Amino acid sequence: MRAIAVERDGSQPRLIEKPRPEPDPGEALVRTLRVGIDGTDFEVIDGNHGGFPAESDHQVLGHEAVGVVEESNGTALEEGQLVVPTVRRPPDTANEYFRRGEPDMAPPDECLERGIDGEHGFMADYVTSPEAFLVPVPPAFEATGILIEPMSNTEKALEHAYASRSAFDWQRDAALVLGNGPLGLLTLARLQSEFERTYCLGRRDRPDPTIDLIERLGATYVDSRETPVAAVPAEYEPMDLVYEATGYAKHAFETIDALDQNGVGVLLGLPGDAAFDVAGGRLHRTLVQGNRALVGSVNSHVEHFEAACETLSALPDWFSDALVTDVFEPAAVDDAFSRSPDRIKTVIEFDSR
Amino acid sequence: MRAIAVERDGSQPRLIEKPRPEPDPGEALVRTLRVGIDGTDFEVIDGNHGGFPAESDHQVLGHEAVGVVEESNGTALEEGQLVVPTVRRPPDTANEYFRRGEPDMAPPDECLERGIDGEHGFMADYVTSPEAFLVPVPPAFEATGILIEPMSNTEKALEHAYASRSAFDWQRDAALVLGNGPLGLLTLARLQSEFERTYCLGRRDRPDPTIDLIERLGATYVDSRETPVAAVPAEYEPMDLVYEATGYAKHAFETIDALDQNGVGVLLGLPGDAAFDVAGGRLHRTLVQGNRALVGSVNSHVEHFEAACETLSALPDWFSDALVTDVFEPAAVDDAFSRSPDRIKTVIEFDSR
Repeated sequence: MRAIAVERDGSQPRLIEKPRPEPDPGEALVRTLRVGIDGTDFEVIDGNHGGFPAESDHQVLGHEAVGVVEESNGTALEEGQLVVPTVRRPPDTANEYFRRGEPDMAPPDECLERGIDGEHGFMADYVTSPEAFLVPVPPAFEATGILIEPMSNTEKALEHAYASRSAFDWQRDAALVLGNGPLGLLTLARLQSEFERTYCLGRRDRPDPTIDLIERLGATYVDSRETPVAAVPAEYEPMDLVYEATGYAKHAFETIDALDQNGVGVLLGLPGDAAFDVAGGRLHRTLVQGNRALVGSVNSHVEHFEAACETLSALPDWFSDALVTDVFEPAAVDDAFSRSPDRIKTVIEFDSR
Repeated sequence: MRAIAVERDGSQPRLIEKPRPEPDPGEALVRTLRVGIDGTDFEVIDGNHGGFPAESDHQVLGHEAVGVVEESNGTALEEGQLVVPTVRRPPDTANEYFRRGEPDMAPPDECLERGIDGEHGFMADYVTSPEAFLVPVPPAFEATGILIEPMSNTEKALEHAYASRSAFDWQRDAALVLGNGPLGLLTLARLQSEFERTYCLGRRDRPDPTIDLIERLGATYVDSRETPVAAVPAEYEPMDLVYEATGYAKHAFETIDALDQNGVGVLLGLPGDAAFDVAGGRLHRTLVQGNRALVGSVNSHVEHFEAACETLSALPDWFSDALVTDVFEPAAVDDAFSRSPDRIKTVIEFDSR
């Protein structure tokens, strides 16, 4: 079968042939329809994140997938069922986090991540997975099911952020998303129904498809070259929620200044090492006197995938179409992994029903 | 009546005479029994925190009080009832935070604080207060009711911290309190019943009454001169909760490194301005990959005072006695406000029943 993988001595993803996997007991065989590309894939390709599966000279990429159950193999899944696989797998035997159904809360060294860290991903004609890690989704998600995994990360992050504000009467007036990539835009769309006013920060010139999408959602585009994060309250308004989806190291700290009284900053980006000077005393005091919080969040579990499904179903029809700008066949791997400012979400289509 | 106040041109608190206040409609007159001294009082004296009441040439100190209702003045309070006053008052008319019963969530410019910012405090023979800000407490708190206000701040802070960890199955194995002042020790005592193992960080040599108290509680004393905060996981263990009660600016950032996977840092100290270099990228990433959170918290509301009452009632009898090391008459104001390493909690006693 076809697969898109990086090799240990390679710097670019390639289309390779490898045997179709056989499902173990408790696993189903899934025929892959589509797999999305995101920033993490580029970090994996560049060797900056995750790692190869043990004893493998290559790693199949891809962690945002939708497929069809090809062989139920004795599981409760029905053949033909549309499914989205979750990403984390137990490293050896299941540890406490997996037993609790919360693999997203496991430390990095107590889980593998398909397509990212220690396991092959989903960019292949067929994949196998334990039943428990395959989330059934409605047939309408054949084309857009690849958005469920990234949205599930937002479901989890916001669940934790909202929980942190649940001990008092939190006012949800204004929210700011840092980053206009696919995760930022998905989050912005979700926040429309929960906040009076929403903002999305990027560094792009018009005309730009992400700015169009931001404004079509009813949000305000903030150009970070004109208005740095810490200046947002003065230029616009202080924020009840800031969602960091860029991985720029300074944003975690600038977020504190962008928050309103009692606001929460949600951190999802994964910056590299960077040291810099901060007004640490003032930031510390600002957190305390304003009852502010910073909440870090990574990954998601099955319930977040189910919630993401509901969230995406409730978004306007045009949104997913506007977000998924580019669809490639596996053979067009080089084109698929080239970068362009006109693209928002790029998808590789292995098959359709 | 007697009162202990700082004057606009003075640098030390003095015993003064001023008229006994008359309760307005809706207010009760309270005869003060005891008032505690804490670090905030010294910051007020030094002019580093809060401010004088408008049009007053002095500010009566004190925000940790217990007293007896002297005149109910038509309120539902009974004369003779033991009460503890809350600290925050509306600046003019009640704003949304006071209307919701959450004055602790108000921004600094939308509230006054008795004895701290813009209102006279409780270090006087008599004080008046609206009924809503007087919390009835059992008679057993005559001597130790001054611990209810500081403990209420911990009740509020932990309520918010625990809320931030409520979206998953949080494991409460180990907790670390930064600071062995009265607030740190009160918090350490409260955490005994909730965590398997507790630690308290200070910078004192033995013999020391706070170290004795830490060890009598069953906790481990961590000397920050030997083990800095960020080194605590390597030397002891990573922490599920870190409670910052020193106001040292760098602690907010070092706390991130002291936390275990899925841990929460609770910030209560109020540092001054200080700028310094941080490993910002790594700290940001550590928050994200470990699902860690930082939660700032200030002040408390009536329900937290009620919770503090229950918490203190459940602590061993010896604890409050060991914590309140020094009791002075108002005339001994100079002694009361001198500092000594042998003291933990200093109290001024205006009257007893």
